[in-house]
Amino acid sequence: MIIKKKAVLPGGFTAAGAASGIKKPGRIDLAVFYSERPAVAAAMFTINKVTAAPVKVCREHLEQGVSFRAIVANSGNANCFEGVQGMRDATRMARSAAAALGVKDREVFVASTGIIGKRLPVEKIEAALPGACVALCAGGIEQAKRAIMTTDKFSKDVTAVVTIGGKKVTVCGVAKGAGMIAPTMATMLSFVFTDACISAGTLRKALKNSVEGSYNCITVDGCMSTNDTVICMANGCAGNRPITGGKELQLFQQALDAVNLEIAKMMVRDGEGASKFIEIRVHGAATRDDAKKACLAIANSNLFKTAVYGENPNFGRIASAVGASGCRMKEENLRIRLGPLKGKEVKVAVGLGMGSAECTVYTSDLTPEYIKINAEYN
Amino acid sequence: MIIKKKAVLPGGFTAAGAASGIKKPGRIDLAVFYSERPAVAAAMFTINKVTAAPVKVCREHLEQGVSFRAIVANSGNANCFEGVQGMRDATRMARSAAAALGVKDREVFVASTGIIGKRLPVEKIEAALPGACVALCAGGIEQAKRAIMTTDKFSKDVTAVVTIGGKKVTVCGVAKGAGMIAPTMATMLSFVFTDACISAGTLRKALKNSVEGSYNCITVDGCMSTNDTVICMANGCAGNRPITGGKELQLFQQALDAVNLEIAKMMVRDGEGASKFIEIRVHGAATRDDAKKACLAIANSNLFKTAVYGENPNFGRIASAVGASGCRMKEENLRIRLGPLKGKEVKVAVGLGMGSAECTVYTSDLTPEYIKINAEYN
Repeated sequence: MIIKKKAVLPGGFTAAGAASGIKKPGRIDLAVFYSERPAVAAAMFTINKVTAAPVKVCREHLEQGVSFRAIVANSGNANCFEGVQGMRDATRMARSAAAALGVKDREVFVASTGIIGKRLPVEKIEAALPGACVALCAGGIEQAKRAIMTTDKFSKDVTAVVTIGGKKVTVCGVAKGAGMIAPTMATMLSFVFTDACISAGTLRKALKNSVEGSYNCITVDGCMSTNDTVICMANGCAGNRPITGGKELQLFQQALDAVNLEIAKMMVRDGEGASKFIEIRVHGAATRDDAKKACLAIANSNLFKTAVYGENPNFGRIASAVGASGCRMKEENLRIRLGPLKGKEVKVAVGLGMGSAECTVYTSDLTPEYIKINAEYN
Repeated sequence: MIIKKKAVLPGGFTAAGAASGIKKPGRIDLAVFYSERPAVAAAMFTINKVTAAPVKVCREHLEQGVSFRAIVANSGNANCFEGVQGMRDATRMARSAAAALGVKDREVFVASTGIIGKRLPVEKIEAALPGACVALCAGGIEQAKRAIMTTDKFSKDVTAVVTIGGKKVTVCGVAKGAGMIAPTMATMLSFVFTDACISAGTLRKALKNSVEGSYNCITVDGCMSTNDTVICMANGCAGNRPITGGKELQLFQQALDAVNLEIAKMMVRDGEGASKFIEIRVHGAATRDDAKKACLAIANSNLFKTAVYGENPNFGRIASAVGASGCRMKEENLRIRLGPLKGKEVKVAVGLGMGSAECTVYTSDLTPEYIKINAEYN
């Protein structure tokens, strides 16, 4: 498997970015991703009970549809908490893209990210879409990946290339996410494109596995978004025999996992205000669920995160977070190892001494810069 | 009922503070509270599975004992996560105080607050105790209340005076707490003294009620401490007929609640780095538990707290926190009211439209100063 830390769209996919005017004039804020062939798709969304309109529209399309052609996404406005109007706007966004591309409405996914609780200026999107669709090309991914960024300092894009059944299969992920990052899932939009030939059902299972070990194992601020979306489209252009199981599925899963984990880690590295990348591994847990509870309790502890920022090796704050996490533990079995704090990468290992399950979670430190970003963001 | 925002010890109680040398030389760090008569007591402790040794010793004494005479407390060291040695040190602290006071070991409660994971220099406490016990007097409360402070910018002490059955009953609370504040319970030591005549069982119920509406309804950083302790001692010196129920219990409960709620609010006002005091009321919930979940989800959202710091009326972050809280809700029923953000006091009201239960929680904003305090604290 070859991993490239850049987006290389698989065969049959094109993309484009445009400045629709949602953000300040001239700032790129609209992305279109297109598959020349009908593709199967799998997707996962936020479990927040307050859900953005585009998430609702995607869920509907996923239930109704068999094949999919495009994703249209904007930054600068999350189209969330806007009631019936929000649903109208999200539907209209899908319809405009479908019209510009000459495909069916339900073949288009929509995604929005940005501020919550302000009406989406859908007419601006509508006006910009035809031009964006004309510009679609493989190289357009460079514009498209920038168009979905909000507080991101860099774009998150990774490509894995793997040989499956003698054919070169590409998995390319493009994502945004830097804050309001908490698992199930991290706050983010992540679009993964592959030319693999795979059934929708197999793709769904593979994506679910992959999300659990990647986006669901990162946290920046413990805040769960209303817009979290990961969509994976597979258009079969690689010409491989359909992946159904065995060695071939294993190879595909590895590629998908590599892309998603790398993107998830990039989100943490770009965590709002982050000065450190922190890996927290809890082992010796009774169950993986216990290990994850303990990991997340540490990762979301403001006291732990500020201690790391201050390069202050405060074991007590780790012990205290684990004790409050709800995981099965005995104080006398607890073992904490904290690596050097001076560098950019910090590792924490916690042994619970209760069993053999483990989990690893990635997070960032809590800094004055995080507060500055989130106090001033409008 | 008369409320004074200062400590006035009830009849039969004395106190003293001393500089034992746990903190820098000359800084007051040891408090003794003493009841001339045997008192009944009720107490509640942290539910963190990592529990400080003094909490364990208090629990033992509470199980074994019928009457109690004193509380000895230190700041600068939490005596937590120190294993068997920590238990030895906490027991020795109680024993030394008992010897200096001429009472039984199990009649003494112990409490420690400060850094976790460093051995308690118990010999310093032992050396300072005889002098502190000689100095015990009603006015000694001024020294004692300062001796338990850590990052506190001001001491928390409140006195309520109420007439019960024709007798003047005093309830006086003295507490510390500014960070690692999360409910069940807030991180704190809170000692409440009353000259009321009341049985241990009735006192226990009254304290439990009172804690639920006060310390369990505040949060600064969502981090649960290992040392949280509230102890209430009642020595009967007021000479009232024993309080068992009815109007008399109601009056006593009101006084106890007033003291605990005022202290809890003081902790939030003194929240580490706090620039605003925030009241969050969730109403129209299906159950009080739902209302509390929603309150705490908002109160512990870093994004909400930074928005308040930035005086940025971001409704979306409130909606998103409620949606992720796990409370029963419908997006279309959700109503959010956010008061002016310019002042020192901010009010948020959230209607869930699901029923008639409600809850109010108090919190502070998240500021660069919080990070400074917690990155540098050792």
